Amino acid sequence: MNTITEQLQHKINNKTKPLGSLGKLEEIALQIGQIQNTTSPKLNEPTIIVFAADHGLADAGVSPFPKEVTYQMVLNFLGNGAAINVFCKQNNINLKVVDAGVDADFENNPNLIHEKIANGTKNILESAAMTIDECNKAIEAGGKIISDQFKIGCNIIGFGEMGIGNTSSASLLMSKIIGLNIEDCVGNGTGHDVEGLKRKKELLKQAFEKHQLNSDPIEILATFGGFEIAMMTGAFLKAAELGMTIMVDGFIVTSALLVANEINPEILKNCIFTHTSNEQGHIKMLNHLNANPILGLDLRLGEGTGAAVTYPIIKSAVNFLNDMASFEDAGVSNKE
Amino acid sequence: MNTITEQLQHKINNKTKPLGSLGKLEEIALQIGQIQNTTSPKLNEPTIIVFAADHGLADAGVSPFPKEVTYQMVLNFLGNGAAINVFCKQNNINLKVVDAGVDADFENNPNLIHEKIANGTKNILESAAMTIDECNKAIEAGGKIISDQFKIGCNIIGFGEMGIGNTSSASLLMSKIIGLNIEDCVGNGTGHDVEGLKRKKELLKQAFEKHQLNSDPIEILATFGGFEIAMMTGAFLKAAELGMTIMVDGFIVTSALLVANEINPEILKNCIFTHTSNEQGHIKMLNHLNANPILGLDLRLGEGTGAAVTYPIIKSAVNFLNDMASFEDAGVSNKE
Repeated sequence: MNTITEQLQHKINNKTKPLGSLGKLEEIALQIGQIQNTTSPKLNEPTIIVFAADHGLADAGVSPFPKEVTYQMVLNFLGNGAAINVFCKQNNINLKVVDAGVDADFENNPNLIHEKIANGTKNILESAAMTIDECNKAIEAGGKIISDQFKIGCNIIGFGEMGIGNTSSASLLMSKIIGLNIEDCVGNGTGHDVEGLKRKKELLKQAFEKHQLNSDPIEILATFGGFEIAMMTGAFLKAAELGMTIMVDGFIVTSALLVANEINPEILKNCIFTHTSNEQGHIKMLNHLNANPILGLDLRLGEGTGAAVTYPIIKSAVNFLNDMASFEDAGVSNKE
Repeated sequence: MNTITEQLQHKINNKTKPLGSLGKLEEIALQIGQIQNTTSPKLNEPTIIVFAADHGLADAGVSPFPKEVTYQMVLNFLGNGAAINVFCKQNNINLKVVDAGVDADFENNPNLIHEKIANGTKNILESAAMTIDECNKAIEAGGKIISDQFKIGCNIIGFGEMGIGNTSSASLLMSKIIGLNIEDCVGNGTGHDVEGLKRKKELLKQAFEKHQLNSDPIEILATFGGFEIAMMTGAFLKAAELGMTIMVDGFIVTSALLVANEINPEILKNCIFTHTSNEQGHIKMLNHLNANPILGLDLRLGEGTGAAVTYPIIKSAVNFLNDMASFEDAGVSNKE
């Protein structure tokens, strides 16, 4: 009996097209077939979960946007006004928003999941962003959210995030885990001028040097935060455990994957990298993970928008595998 | 009063996102707004037209596939079994197939447009592919097909092609128009081994040297063919004249654009380049046209598949422009 990989490759090669001519789409079809262990994979209840949280460091001036924008943008998500709403609606993707630790309270809303760990992390210039206990609680909450989506039939999921200051957390995590200088991990985030970027780099250098850490991924995560990143770390681990296909978005989401990959590198088999962000550190993270994303549109918005925009291409890969005729079916002569 | 470009840029900049953070999607939104001369563009009746024709040169062995595959693949299109069918169905794109000069006759079918100029072109190793009269007739037919789609409300269109041997025509057109050595314009097409590629290069060198041409684009087009390429040249010119947005596909389609661009370079304003093909000459054509496509998925299938797969991304660009909230609408604080 042939392996599933051989069966998939045979099916792909016998479609009415020149061998290999669907390029990256063929790789994606093969990967999803491998994940689902079938030559006829299906994408069910595609879902994006946006994790939102505040960062104590934001008050120190690492972002040109004020901290209350985290809260305001969550309301924008719930009011269907943000980019992620537009792209999910277009592509029939379910969207859920998680309050992972926003420094404000929300009323109930069918699209909002309440998993607030605390009202924002602590300022990492002064202490660890969160306790180890809070970090584990966030990882567990992320896992539970994914299990709930899995139970209602979702088998392809992407994560997004909102949190003023969270490119700073992502840069610090990246610097520690990949072992690059913090200066090489810091980018413009939501948009700095030259002075702003210089200040951000200085603050993050201070934060990095304040904390003497070993290589324990949970300790690193707890130290640099934030709650949305810790929750996404748990979400990555659980989604892979459940055999879901995971659409990896940009810089912040990939920082959570860096942590999850330290805990269990097997999860990469379930990851489809959707785009290369314009945030300069992202390409270095991707290189570390040997990842070659589908799109390069210079996006740097966050919210999971890269995953949402890429989803139709992933669907095209599955559709050609399921719906195209083979040479035999169509009575088309193959290569001589 | 501000220009439409200024109005569009203002609208884009005031959406609830960091400035410029939607990257290439912002460029696409701007371009379509400019084409339609409105800050609220709409994409109506998206359509892909696949032009099919046979090539006299095919019998000389420029392709590893036999010539009858052109006919067989048209039947596959009409039977909904090809890649272009799958992607058009997925993305709600109308699909029409044109018999521009296939060496076989077709029964009537609601999705087939009969515009056969002749039963294939002549072998360009012996004579010009077509007469100037046939070439003009094909250009006119291409224009008429587009006008018909425009009349039924289509304002965004893409072209695809099917024709065993047509990478050879495209390479010759490219070589003459861009002024590159023919060897640098020839690629693997549907998939050659080393020997096959060597033979293809030799044959095309002979064909190139046989015809002493001046720079008249119609004469070049008539000499190197084929009918599907000439028809697409007319389609490009008419679609731009009618103010439509044109989704440019891969190597063969872009060879028709090279010719159309020689006739009227203004048409480039209406062109959105959807992908960079894996056929090696395509990137050189794109550089000649200063084009920077949306996708780079290593596709080389033809049929307009690159355009069809890219369409949802173009739609995302228009959707964010129309449907996202502004900072003011959503009560979100802008950058400090």
